[in-house]
Amino acid sequence: MSTEKQTRPKARLPRGFRDRGAAEIAAERAALETIRKVYESYGFEPLETPAFEYTDALGKFLPDVDRPNEGVFSLRDDDEQWLSLRYDLTAPLARYVAENFQNLPKPFRRYQVGQVWRNEKPGPGRFREFTQFDADTVGSNAPSADAELLMMACDALEAAGLKRGEYVVKLNSRKLLDGVLEDAGIDLSRRGSVLRAIDKFDRLGEGGVRALLGEGRKDESGDFTKGAGLNAGQISQVMKLLVDSASALSGAKGMGDLLAINTVLSASDYGADRVVIDTSIVRGLDYYTGPVFEAQLTFPVANEVGEKVVFGSVMGGGRYDDLVARFTGQQVPATGISIGVSRLLSALKGRTPSALAPLVVVLAIDDVARSFDMARELRAAGIRVEAYVGTKKFGDQLKYADKRGAAIAVMEGGDERAKGEVTLKDLALGAELAKNIESRAAWVKDRPAQISVKRSELVSAVCRLLNKRNE
Amino acid sequence: MSTEKQTRPKARLPRGFRDRGAAEIAAERAALETIRKVYESYGFEPLETPAFEYTDALGKFLPDVDRPNEGVFSLRDDDEQWLSLRYDLTAPLARYVAENFQNLPKPFRRYQVGQVWRNEKPGPGRFREFTQFDADTVGSNAPSADAELLMMACDALEAAGLKRGEYVVKLNSRKLLDGVLEDAGIDLSRRGSVLRAIDKFDRLGEGGVRALLGEGRKDESGDFTKGAGLNAGQISQVMKLLVDSASALSGAKGMGDLLAINTVLSASDYGADRVVIDTSIVRGLDYYTGPVFEAQLTFPVANEVGEKVVFGSVMGGGRYDDLVARFTGQQVPATGISIGVSRLLSALKGRTPSALAPLVVVLAIDDVARSFDMARELRAAGIRVEAYVGTKKFGDQLKYADKRGAAIAVMEGGDERAKGEVTLKDLALGAELAKNIESRAAWVKDRPAQISVKRSELVSAVCRLLNKRNE
Repeated sequence: MSTEKQTRPKARLPRGFRDRGAAEIAAERAALETIRKVYESYGFEPLETPAFEYTDALGKFLPDVDRPNEGVFSLRDDDEQWLSLRYDLTAPLARYVAENFQNLPKPFRRYQVGQVWRNEKPGPGRFREFTQFDADTVGSNAPSADAELLMMACDALEAAGLKRGEYVVKLNSRKLLDGVLEDAGIDLSRRGSVLRAIDKFDRLGEGGVRALLGEGRKDESGDFTKGAGLNAGQISQVMKLLVDSASALSGAKGMGDLLAINTVLSASDYGADRVVIDTSIVRGLDYYTGPVFEAQLTFPVANEVGEKVVFGSVMGGGRYDDLVARFTGQQVPATGISIGVSRLLSALKGRTPSALAPLVVVLAIDDVARSFDMARELRAAGIRVEAYVGTKKFGDQLKYADKRGAAIAVMEGGDERAKGEVTLKDLALGAELAKNIESRAAWVKDRPAQISVKRSELVSAVCRLLNKRNE
Repeated sequence: MSTEKQTRPKARLPRGFRDRGAAEIAAERAALETIRKVYESYGFEPLETPAFEYTDALGKFLPDVDRPNEGVFSLRDDDEQWLSLRYDLTAPLARYVAENFQNLPKPFRRYQVGQVWRNEKPGPGRFREFTQFDADTVGSNAPSADAELLMMACDALEAAGLKRGEYVVKLNSRKLLDGVLEDAGIDLSRRGSVLRAIDKFDRLGEGGVRALLGEGRKDESGDFTKGAGLNAGQISQVMKLLVDSASALSGAKGMGDLLAINTVLSASDYGADRVVIDTSIVRGLDYYTGPVFEAQLTFPVANEVGEKVVFGSVMGGGRYDDLVARFTGQQVPATGISIGVSRLLSALKGRTPSALAPLVVVLAIDDVARSFDMARELRAAGIRVEAYVGTKKFGDQLKYADKRGAAIAVMEGGDERAKGEVTLKDLALGAELAKNIESRAAWVKDRPAQISVKRSELVSAVCRLLNKRNE
């Protein structure tokens, strides 16, 4: 292995990717466990598909050879077939269902959690690899299938830590949107820009959306967004969708589905305090064919520097009845939800206790076997404990325990061993004292920074000290 | 979305990849949780690196443009830099440590679990994506660092379900091997074939290895493997390594490290019933620089058709002091272990109970809201329950519940509702009766296939029936 300077690679993360440390991993793991338990309690079972799919199976046909990576990460296999990393968990599900259709129970209900990859321009907070947690029901067009998913989403969000009233699940239908477009005689070529304008209703309000449906809109920075170019009559018809109440639209195409879903939800006590019909919800993905869902937070979220930020949805989904037909020609009804785990976790930041237990470090003064023994006893009592395995001297070992964020350092030198004792150093105390000078007297009185205990009482003394921390 | 026949992709898994279902996922999740808890109890903390690394950072320099995917999955990013999917978790750790060296506690101890990808020819049981679970200590050359990892490996294997005595951790040193090669005057160009011959000692015995060290060996099928071409004196010197006891080699280079590790292990009661020095252990990876480890099973494992198979190691690892230096030029001592999770699970197959709780299906006879209500009550009692959300009639719903492997189906039709009752159907009973005719009378007596209970007693009746199943 060459270590010549000229051949040394630079140690660096690829653009748009990141390393994650213990606190973030532990918080995500706890959230995923919580969601998983809710999904399993509803009888959904896990499925795992591989990271790669054939590119054509993902719906990316014949990638342009000059830019085979547009949007997805793609490469050519030995046998010349194109492979792509999954960009979501829905396209692989459609492939799985089409491939195994005969043997699956219908409806087929599965959840899947995993990484997905997007070959997009990275930006602040915008990564090319992230976690999705999906649940889907394939093979039922009953409104109860959609209703069940929304109930499950509410249960999962509440189990993860959101209080009732801190989120609202909004429900709309693509059929409703398309019906209005058709009735207003709006050309299909304008559908995209009309939907994008509608999607901005909660941020821009009526005036902003009217401008975007017509000639266009200049924002605060002076940037101009070209509008959809509808005429005044068409704009009025589209705006009715946004400002009329749901009941005024009750005869419209697609509204029947939404009311049927709502009936099941209300009967199960998932009423308007949790799920509401909102005709301004669009959802970006082209493949939705009926009801679409979105969960939004009702409280403001601050970014790292304390500014309130516009916060996207923490759950999205909808019905996509055509995805399996892409393979088989046979339409299979399907509906699903996807929880944005990273976004949910940043909304809950500071609310959930650390998922890592406090750490005890046993220093290695002069007898490794004895320090390993102490660690073993503490570990058997369920305490997270580390025996120092480096080669540094006492002072550096203490600094190491501090850097590790340990709560307690345990030491047994020759003098202590002769007396049958060990010393416990309360590492959290120093930090607390520095933070809050006023309570110093009380702290010192109750919790001396360092105590000696009998070797035989090591475990009980450490437990006592750790419990005091949690008081 | 076109569903024209000529443009339809075929739904198929990419070569060498697979889908995984509920039972396998649940078993793996339980094993990973068990191992994780052991690693965390030792104070190791999780780290997650991304799926992609820059190809040069993985040690694959300048991929051949004709075959950029040799061994790893690689592609060129927009900015012309080559990216590769990680093929193990050690190379990304080396990149991470080199990139963050100043800020890390030393020693730095982390675990990582995740998928890795190998662009190899797929075969039966040989996949291009699989799970690894690693723990490493970087920044300490103390024997206690290696010893701790081996203790942790033993604890993890036992926690996962292997009994004491069903596995043995073998310990050797690359320095010992290289010392013997050097003493025997064996040319470096022959090192690979000599190590491969030694590696086969436990399968081929003394005679087989002698042949492979010399001219070569013909196996049972008649295939000839060319040997390393050593002379008789060199062969004797190498064979001493395999047949002499460890104590006879106590003065050899590298033996000091092994004895120091063993001293720590024995003092902590991880003696010869768990860890032994075995000078025939090689480990394939080129980057090991000192002690190497391997855990082998001591009992035979059968494959799917009941044949006993040669079973590889369930844990491997060793010391690799040069990996970080590849980036920084500065040698950093490092040692690690990796548990082969899939292999461990296939060895434990049939031993561990299903990680999925029994399932109850509530049929939807004529009132979805009422069936959702029953499901909700059962779910609140901690039972895994599914409300039927399809559109089929009663008989097909029962078949569905059977196909889902449900233990109990719950039904409330109009007649039952009028009486304030629900019907519970014991789906496991039919299957049991078919299996064991003799006990039929007892079964029918104790557990009628179908019972009616008061609607208000639904939860307690289901619990009673499920508990009977577990008797």
